[in-house]
Amino acid sequence: MKHYKFMHEAIKEAKRSLDEGGIPIGAVLIKEGEIISRGHNQIKQKNSTVLHAEMDCLENAGHLKGSDYKKCILYTTLIPCDMCSGMLLLYKIPLVVMGENKTFSGPENYLQEHGVELINLNLDECKKMMSDYIQNNAEFWNEEIDRVT
Amino acid sequence: MKHYKFMHEAIKEAKRSLDEGGIPIGAVLIKEGEIISRGHNQIKQKNSTVLHAEMDCLENAGHLKGSDYKKCILYTTLIPCDMCSGMLLLYKIPLVVMGENKTFSGPENYLQEHGVELINLNLDECKKMMSDYIQNNAEFWNEEIDRVT
Repeated sequence: MKHYKFMHEAIKEAKRSLDEGGIPIGAVLIKEGEIISRGHNQIKQKNSTVLHAEMDCLENAGHLKGSDYKKCILYTTLIPCDMCSGMLLLYKIPLVVMGENKTFSGPENYLQEHGVELINLNLDECKKMMSDYIQNNAEFWNEEIDRVT
Repeated sequence: MKHYKFMHEAIKEAKRSLDEGGIPIGAVLIKEGEIISRGHNQIKQKNSTVLHAEMDCLENAGHLKGSDYKKCILYTTLIPCDMCSGMLLLYKIPLVVMGENKTFSGPENYLQEHGVELINLNLDECKKMMSDYIQNNAEFWNEEIDRVT
């Protein structure tokens, strides 16, 4: 199924982040069946506060036309947070496929009320990537959670 | 009045962006009466899709503690958009002072419902910066508006 094919690419991005010492969250942006951009969480690697996987992926896509954003699907290994959800609303990306929504939560109702379709693949692989990361990097993860709670 | 003092600094950032050939929107982040970070719109200069003034400012602040974000005030020359509003909610910044909300619109009710206080200084200086920019850079501005409408 195509959703799993593209989620597998998002998972590759998450693993790339992990290899860099970062949080294993990845994303890919699809337009008309093709990957047009990839990204991963850069909070640790770039000491960033805004480059979550979804944001990094959108940034790497460069400037698209408005009509192109509306043809896109964002695949992300973890549910979009408030910030990434706001970005999705700003650019009017109509469909988000997430790997899971257990490790973190996001404004799912708000997105849906504003016309964003959400599909949750609820993948054990995505949940395990995060639980393993958290277990092995408790100090950094707790600092990161402290920043947003 | 302190709001005007800090908004003046945000306006300086907006003018810095203009000097770089970018969109004149600026922001400063204040903690306990001190400017701890500055930023401006980088859409043109860095071919960015995520570095609005508010995002650039937060990125430049680096990693703060959660308790510190909650002591911050963000000054921005233009109302925060959906994305920047989501960032404010993620980091739980409790007060935003904006220069104006005429040139663009943002989710003011949503922010207020989630506990973010908004103060609109409704400054002609901020509105004129944007109207002059739009008049002189109609092509880029229209492309940018097309991306988000």
